[in-house]
Amino acid sequence: MNLLENLGIKVVEQTKKKVVLEMTIEDIHLQPYKIMHGGLNAVLAETAGSIGANLNIKEDGFAAVGVDIMTHQLNKIKDGIVIAEATPVRIGKNIQTWQAFTHKKGSAINASLSTMTLKKVKVD
Amino acid sequence: MNLLENLGIKVVEQTKKKVVLEMTIEDIHLQPYKIMHGGLNAVLAETAGSIGANLNIKEDGFAAVGVDIMTHQLNKIKDGIVIAEATPVRIGKNIQTWQAFTHKKGSAINASLSTMTLKKVKVD
Amino acid sequence: MNLLENLGIKVVEQTKKKVVLEMTIEDIHLQPYKIMHGGLNAVLAETAGSIGANLNIKEDGFAAVGVDIMTHQLNKIKDGIVIAEATPVRIGKNIQTWQAFTHKKGSAINASLSTMTLKKVKVD
Amino acid sequence: MNLLENLGIKVVEQTKKKVVLEMTIEDIHLQPYKIMHGGLNAVLAETAGSIGANLNIKEDGFAAVGVDIMTHQLNKIKDGIVIAEATPVRIGKNIQTWQAFTHKKGSAINASLSTMTLKKVKVD
Repeated sequence: MNLLENLGIKVVEQTKKKVVLEMTIEDIHLQPYKIMHGGLNAVLAETAGSIGANLNIKEDGFAAVGVDIMTHQLNKIKDGIVIAEATPVRIGKNIQTWQAFTHKKGSAINASLSTMTLKKVKVD
Repeated sequence: MNLLENLGIKVVEQTKKKVVLEMTIEDIHLQPYKIMHGGLNAVLAETAGSIGANLNIKEDGFAAVGVDIMTHQLNKIKDGIVIAEATPVRIGKNIQTWQAFTHKKGSAINASLSTMTLKKVKVD
Repeated sequence: MNLLENLGIKVVEQTKKKVVLEMTIEDIHLQPYKIMHGGLNAVLAETAGSIGANLNIKEDGFAAVGVDIMTHQLNKIKDGIVIAEATPVRIGKNIQTWQAFTHKKGSAINASLSTMTLKKVKVD
Repeated sequence: MNLLENLGIKVVEQTKKKVVLEMTIEDIHLQPYKIMHGGLNAVLAETAGSIGANLNIKEDGFAAVGVDIMTHQLNKIKDGIVIAEATPVRIGKNIQTWQAFTHKKGSAINASLSTMTLKKVKVD
């Protein structure tokens, strides 16, 4: 069981232009104050960005790995289903930049905004 | 069981000037390529920074919550015990900035560098 | 002559929802390799975000100042007119988040993406 | 006259392990509220990080350019001489991470903290 399975993160959509994830909030996603742990925004964004970036790498034996990630926590989430949507800002040959917004399903209010830089590396 | 218990994150040291966390890498921390999921660096950093920031808030009824977090993934971690050490960069009245390095226990090579901004909020 | 006058940064549009700046590239904007200095993306973004954030503060005696800024340099600019457009991601009571894209006038290719956090402070 | 000359940024020290810059604050560095423009922290950091990163590239025909930069504005600067000190966090083959602190000369209080990611590119 990897981290995505442990946290119940599901891939709802995955193309070169957009990746959507879903996660139903349970106790295991909360920090001690009973709100979703802010670090999970980074987990969701990094997961979505990596999936999308890998779809844009055509060469065998290469994969996209995260260089850095910036997450802004905009609004608290306490329960419900969280949706993370990532879209590319720039698809470079060796470096890609992706951005992800998370929001609660059924709400248009963003909970976090993340921007990732990913690089192409040889898979060993 | 909250996120910290789910992921096995233990607080080893906590003062106003330094917070140290430990986490033993297991399958549940890995992404599909079998390395530690990069988003966990943000989870560790945010956890450590929040603990430290809360120790610096003296007023009852207030807590520190994350505003944003920037994580640089410097080196891959595949197994072993991960140590995250956070120290304050600036303790302001309403805004604090903390920085955290993670490394593998027994190694001096940093695996990630995170910088967090946290704000004081009323606890409701 | 302040920094904006020194660099020839002009405010083209300013509302609570959008701020647009223009800057004609000259030698004084270049780094030694003859491309626009990457730090100017942060100057443009911070300027645009601050103007917009201040328009959203209604109370006398308060102003918005930058907390942090993240800039991704997407594509090089060597000459022409640079446009920076900032829009709000979240307008909180004490903390605002703004995002800015810069591109060359007449081109749809983004040169940089910046995200800023700004806070309300008492003006002394 | 390039941007560094225009802003009076002087290189005081440059080695593979440390780069130090100095800038005397004048009107041309201020934003309209008469404090140093926050974007200049990014200009100083990017300049220092680029110089240091280039010293770590040994191959002819390659240079280091900025990928992204994160700047935290810790304390206001109104006058005096600003010192920016950059040191490497990680020197990778293709990607380097540098960090810079700025402070006022004669003061130990940090004014900003910046972290940069830089990549090696072919010079055309």
